[in-house]
Amino acid sequence: MSLHRLRTLSTTRWSQLTSTVPKRHLTLPTSYKYDPSFVRLVDVSPRDGLQNERTPIPTPTKITLINKLTALNIPVIESTSFVSPKWVPQLSDAAAVMQGISKKEGTSYPVLTPNLKGLERALELGVEEVAVFPAVTEGFSKRNLNAGVEETLGRFGDVIAKALENGVRVRGYVSVVLGCPYEGDVSPSSVARVAERLFKMGCYEISLGDTIGTGTPNKMRELLKAVCQVVPVENLAVHCHDTYGQALGNIYEAINFGVRVVDSSVAGLGGCPYAKGATGNVATEDVLYLVHGMGLRTGVDLNEAVKVGNWISGELGRKNASRVANALTAKL
Amino acid sequence: MSLHRLRTLSTTRWSQLTSTVPKRHLTLPTSYKYDPSFVRLVDVSPRDGLQNERTPIPTPTKITLINKLTALNIPVIESTSFVSPKWVPQLSDAAAVMQGISKKEGTSYPVLTPNLKGLERALELGVEEVAVFPAVTEGFSKRNLNAGVEETLGRFGDVIAKALENGVRVRGYVSVVLGCPYEGDVSPSSVARVAERLFKMGCYEISLGDTIGTGTPNKMRELLKAVCQVVPVENLAVHCHDTYGQALGNIYEAINFGVRVVDSSVAGLGGCPYAKGATGNVATEDVLYLVHGMGLRTGVDLNEAVKVGNWISGELGRKNASRVANALTAKL
Repeated sequence: MSLHRLRTLSTTRWSQLTSTVPKRHLTLPTSYKYDPSFVRLVDVSPRDGLQNERTPIPTPTKITLINKLTALNIPVIESTSFVSPKWVPQLSDAAAVMQGISKKEGTSYPVLTPNLKGLERALELGVEEVAVFPAVTEGFSKRNLNAGVEETLGRFGDVIAKALENGVRVRGYVSVVLGCPYEGDVSPSSVARVAERLFKMGCYEISLGDTIGTGTPNKMRELLKAVCQVVPVENLAVHCHDTYGQALGNIYEAINFGVRVVDSSVAGLGGCPYAKGATGNVATEDVLYLVHGMGLRTGVDLNEAVKVGNWISGELGRKNASRVANALTAKL
Repeated sequence: MSLHRLRTLSTTRWSQLTSTVPKRHLTLPTSYKYDPSFVRLVDVSPRDGLQNERTPIPTPTKITLINKLTALNIPVIESTSFVSPKWVPQLSDAAAVMQGISKKEGTSYPVLTPNLKGLERALELGVEEVAVFPAVTEGFSKRNLNAGVEETLGRFGDVIAKALENGVRVRGYVSVVLGCPYEGDVSPSSVARVAERLFKMGCYEISLGDTIGTGTPNKMRELLKAVCQVVPVENLAVHCHDTYGQALGNIYEAINFGVRVVDSSVAGLGGCPYAKGATGNVATEDVLYLVHGMGLRTGVDLNEAVKVGNWISGELGRKNASRVANALTAKL
């Protein structure tokens, strides 16, 4: 494997970085272990993929989607969000979804928790992993989380602390890392600051979100260089939207850099709320094609993933947004 | 600029490689000069983009498309093909197109010439640049060119020689460089052999075509390593289809490698004849977004390119296949 072009962290440095971090978040499922030959997929379609759908999706459809992703052997499935139903009516059935799915040993089903109230609902349901999601820019933070960056970091800090107290691990998303719809360019150092805060508060992993898909691979590389000075590359994930078609290039560069966790959405579910009609999340099928083409394992069968993507696309009455899925389906 | 990860050719080696090449093909327009900060776009939409359209496209529409690409400042516009109208009925108006367009000083309008007959028709019209297009595999060659690789290289060799005699420069395409619909995997060394032959016969540039879009960026890199042992990277172009969503990643890797000529098609025109309904050529708009994001120049305005892509998509009654175009259009 010559994929690691840059690994800036020595063991000593890693120990330094992690010495101040609450110990509990470092106890992780075996499947989370960093393995250079394995890319861990986090399928976000049930939450990020569906949350902006205008037509209500029946709860059984969501449950079936999660069960199908489980059967695909996707190791992490972002299942729903315990936000206020006023904010995201599409996910108001969060409890019913979490109670209805058939969980598999070794598969994780994280849920989003915007505040302590959401966390409490999640804890009551026996959720084992939650996610918090601050943004980098004041503009995005105020418009999407109704508070500035510092205030949301405080709020999420309370969520993280209480989750860890309850033995629940926490994933941290950082939004708009490669561009903001309100402020434009985003500096890598500002992303690094937020990522470091989340990591030190106890998040086991930081997922860097190119929320509006404006990054290009060279910018992804510069970002990772900055962030991995403060968070080990082993604890980083990338979350790329394909709005400008750059997602796979960005993911390729992140993998070359050493990142081994990639967020994606089957059938590319999830539009871009900042550009109606534009592409949203990168498709799981497209990521599988890239990663397997690089000689890395995912544990997921591409053809089976295409079937799941085609199934949910049919349920939603639309064409599968994955180019790989369309190419493979056309050949059948 | 730290983009050149690998430049294997010393000046001495370049002289060795080019010493046996007919001198005439080395006399090129100023705009063809290799400049590390500039990516030369070759828009293939009038030919590769339109040739598989089932509905006849009016000649004036084709002429307007080429004129609009000229106004965009695209340096090279692949305008049509002088193949037999029996093979490609859509391009049977090749002569009318070439006579109808308004050529701009400094812009090139290459045409495809499959044989001496096609070349003669092109020469009569005063064409200044033609293209030949052998394949790497026997399977693809026999099915698409009705002859094996060696026989087509002989036939194209006659075309190249006669074109050079007439002061016409020749571009060489090599098809199925990263995968063949009939033979599967293709070895980099077999591509290098065909590329070297074309270069030594007098092609000023070799465009490496991932005709079915199955390549991934790491495979593109391995291919370029092999080919640039026999053709200087300055004389290479990449021609990527986006069938599996890998095109931009492949182009990114090629640019990082040192390639500075990229084929693309406005609005992503051109389907994949080997997988009906699948994506075809990489969209010019998507390439512009990537290249400009890398801090490189193209001389082309992205927003104006989006307008041209939207116009031709409207003429053809379909949605623009460029993700960048859709994202930017949705924001207007």
